[in-house]
Amino acid sequence: MLPPSRHLSSQFDSELNQVCAQVMEMGGLVEQQIRDAAQALVGMDTASAQAVTQMEQQVNAMEVRIDHALISIIGRRQPTARDLRLLMAFSKVTMNLERIGDEATKLARLVLSLNATPRTLPASDLRAAADLASASLRRALDALARLDTAQAVAVMRDDGLIDGEFDGFVRKLITYLMEDPRTISAGLNLLFAAKAIERIGDHSKNVAEQVIYLVEGRDVRHQPLSAIEQTMQSSDTSGAEHEAQP
Amino acid sequence: MLPPSRHLSSQFDSELNQVCAQVMEMGGLVEQQIRDAAQALVGMDTASAQAVTQMEQQVNAMEVRIDHALISIIGRRQPTARDLRLLMAFSKVTMNLERIGDEATKLARLVLSLNATPRTLPASDLRAAADLASASLRRALDALARLDTAQAVAVMRDDGLIDGEFDGFVRKLITYLMEDPRTISAGLNLLFAAKAIERIGDHSKNVAEQVIYLVEGRDVRHQPLSAIEQTMQSSDTSGAEHEAQP
Repeated sequence: MLPPSRHLSSQFDSELNQVCAQVMEMGGLVEQQIRDAAQALVGMDTASAQAVTQMEQQVNAMEVRIDHALISIIGRRQPTARDLRLLMAFSKVTMNLERIGDEATKLARLVLSLNATPRTLPASDLRAAADLASASLRRALDALARLDTAQAVAVMRDDGLIDGEFDGFVRKLITYLMEDPRTISAGLNLLFAAKAIERIGDHSKNVAEQVIYLVEGRDVRHQPLSAIEQTMQSSDTSGAEHEAQP
Repeated sequence: MLPPSRHLSSQFDSELNQVCAQVMEMGGLVEQQIRDAAQALVGMDTASAQAVTQMEQQVNAMEVRIDHALISIIGRRQPTARDLRLLMAFSKVTMNLERIGDEATKLARLVLSLNATPRTLPASDLRAAADLASASLRRALDALARLDTAQAVAVMRDDGLIDGEFDGFVRKLITYLMEDPRTISAGLNLLFAAKAIERIGDHSKNVAEQVIYLVEGRDVRHQPLSAIEQTMQSSDTSGAEHEAQP
């Protein structure tokens, strides 16, 4: 992601590479959390759920460490506009990764509380959404590592799919709860689990938006996907040039 | 918040003051959104709900504008460690304000969809939580404007109250839904409304954490409130000195 010898100071390069590696490591941890939480949810697997909650502190500590490293680099070096954009994007990505970890932890806690309830509810229906969310984060991190805007747009598209899965799940859950109102309490926990997965998709999309900002210098937050896709297609060649000539 | 003539360049002071004013203005807009959304929810008032959704674009545009201003200031000036901390905190505050606006908009949209449903559900029970959330944001912004750590800690305490209101509401809602399962669909919308209010409290707390970081240089994210309160009390005098001698 960061070609060597870009700066007169190789020390600066090494600091940038180090913080980049930390962001990727944090991303890997959080990805593991989602996978474990999804596994816990579908198999009602207490050990996996506990593994997720045990990783929480580590993820939180990484957020604080990366944030301090970023501020220290910006304060000591006088980064160029492009490097500053990279460092600010890392700051936003880190914040989103922490939130994803938070949602994964919520999901795991819900599994632990759901574990005591009857199995009549369609918990395994959340599998597809959880897999999508996990794949979406992996894609967003890949897009960041390779500065790949096409992947970033794919993540935004995924977010629409995850939202669709969520809406479908809510509709299905309503019919279950109406049929057997005794399951309402457990059903609401399942609903919160679905909500956590949906939010993981939102945060992955936020990471993807930062990739487009980094590569194209365009702030695509709050823009409809169709508009983003259209401009990406029309600037496909110039986008590649951007990457080649930082 | 920013005493005059702190920098050799008065132009720099003026830029800092300007971006600070923009953050406060954005905060004011978002606060208005919560108040209107709460009003809409309790009175099932369509006009207020529409006012909230109409402010969404303005809030989003402010986020993008402030972010660009911050990057531009950091890039052109070489801020001291303290100013950099301020600018990075503004960046995080802005991100949280945008999320609060987002939750207020969700709340307003839910009111518009709830409007078509029967009035048997305890929607007005959310009033207390919505008022708390709105007061909590105002307090967080006040704390930021005055660099008042005692206020910031009060916001964190509020977040616990809002979470308590949320849990109480969920328990009450469950009894309503079990009694009349035909209201489940509308009930889930009300649950999402409650969730939006709860998240507004979370984001206000994030703003408050940035105030403590700014004044004390301590990163209190992910720390339990009791631990934060304890250190605040023991450093009450030194905290005041920090403020007097930036």
